[in-house]
Amino acid sequence: MDNLNIGRHISGQFNEDLERIINHVMHMGGLVEKQLTDALTSVCDADEELAKKVLSNDYLINNAEVSIDDECTRIIAKRQPAAGDLRLVMAIVKTITDLERIGDEAGKIANVTLESLSGKHKDLLSNLDNLGRHVLTFLQATLDAFTRMDSDAAVIVHKSDDKIDREYEALMRQLMTYMMEDPRSIPQIMSVIWSARALERIGDRCQNICEYIIYFVKGKSVRHTTPEDF
Amino acid sequence: MDNLNIGRHISGQFNEDLERIINHVMHMGGLVEKQLTDALTSVCDADEELAKKVLSNDYLINNAEVSIDDECTRIIAKRQPAAGDLRLVMAIVKTITDLERIGDEAGKIANVTLESLSGKHKDLLSNLDNLGRHVLTFLQATLDAFTRMDSDAAVIVHKSDDKIDREYEALMRQLMTYMMEDPRSIPQIMSVIWSARALERIGDRCQNICEYIIYFVKGKSVRHTTPEDF
Repeated sequence: MDNLNIGRHISGQFNEDLERIINHVMHMGGLVEKQLTDALTSVCDADEELAKKVLSNDYLINNAEVSIDDECTRIIAKRQPAAGDLRLVMAIVKTITDLERIGDEAGKIANVTLESLSGKHKDLLSNLDNLGRHVLTFLQATLDAFTRMDSDAAVIVHKSDDKIDREYEALMRQLMTYMMEDPRSIPQIMSVIWSARALERIGDRCQNICEYIIYFVKGKSVRHTTPEDF
Repeated sequence: MDNLNIGRHISGQFNEDLERIINHVMHMGGLVEKQLTDALTSVCDADEELAKKVLSNDYLINNAEVSIDDECTRIIAKRQPAAGDLRLVMAIVKTITDLERIGDEAGKIANVTLESLSGKHKDLLSNLDNLGRHVLTFLQATLDAFTRMDSDAAVIVHKSDDKIDREYEALMRQLMTYMMEDPRSIPQIMSVIWSARALERIGDRCQNICEYIIYFVKGKSVRHTTPEDF
């Protein structure tokens, strides 16, 4: 938390409030990471019980979002933060929205496990798993950059989404070829396609979080700009 | 703007700031509505020029988001709003994120126009257009509820997303049947599928905006609850 400078506030209570919120966001990030890990494991191991657990645990992430959101509004009303403190709170408000949606995407992936995929589509799932592992690493790097509010790391992570996009495009071409070769399996393959899409969306949401980190540290919005402008 | 009670502030400058921000959001909403209308018209009329215009105009919405976001942070820092005023600003911060993403989805729809769809798929496009017109009405009703900050209207609009979801599911089944019957057209049909998905996502984002309206008026987050709890 080097960039947070939490210790510099005159009011010790403000420090405590900020630290508590940041800890809650990290806890929420941990929950989201676990949901994605479990969703991918459930797909890989055809573990229906685990998939159901992912779906039933989504409420934990939803609750975390609502409660952190309330904390953020309260700290603004009570402490009237300015400059960097206010940017931090605003960055948190946006980050938790993206984290919650990443949780939703994990649920979509878990749903694939509950589709009865026949043996011949198992290789598709292993390709999906490869993409999934890269996206998981991407999410972990994003949460790590958030924990340290490290804008340099955020820039590097942000750029690496290109790789995920290329891998996603390649998988999508492969899935379309499978559908053309075996039209009867289209409904099953479509469920793999929705999962791949969910993974690609998680990559985009991690990019959003990286942009909020950069916004907090640099004091400037970098959304809708090219990475060179960062 | 009955529910906004803008006139009640002691500081005339604060009123002006709030009114300016709300006018900017409405202007941004108008831009988004126009982008979706143009995207749908471009698909229906196979108008490639219009589709390119939608894609090149996306920056207007992006700019509006960044600038309203800055205004919101500034008004919090300068005016230190509390209670309803703070909820309004927070609701605006979230609303513009969803509006910007609706703009992105409009771009995805415009992309379909640029795919060269053969004559036999024209009927697919007319089904897509039907769904699109309903989503457009849904967006208009959402923006209307936002303009008046009318939580009762927001509840009604929120519920009507079910209809869009059902229409989307029916279209998706139809598209899968087409793919199974004519596997060579899978790449073209996939582009229609992405558009249908984009429309369904716009419906979800309108629901988010309705939830922010209810949050502002009722002072309570209704995300992740059932419509009966609203």
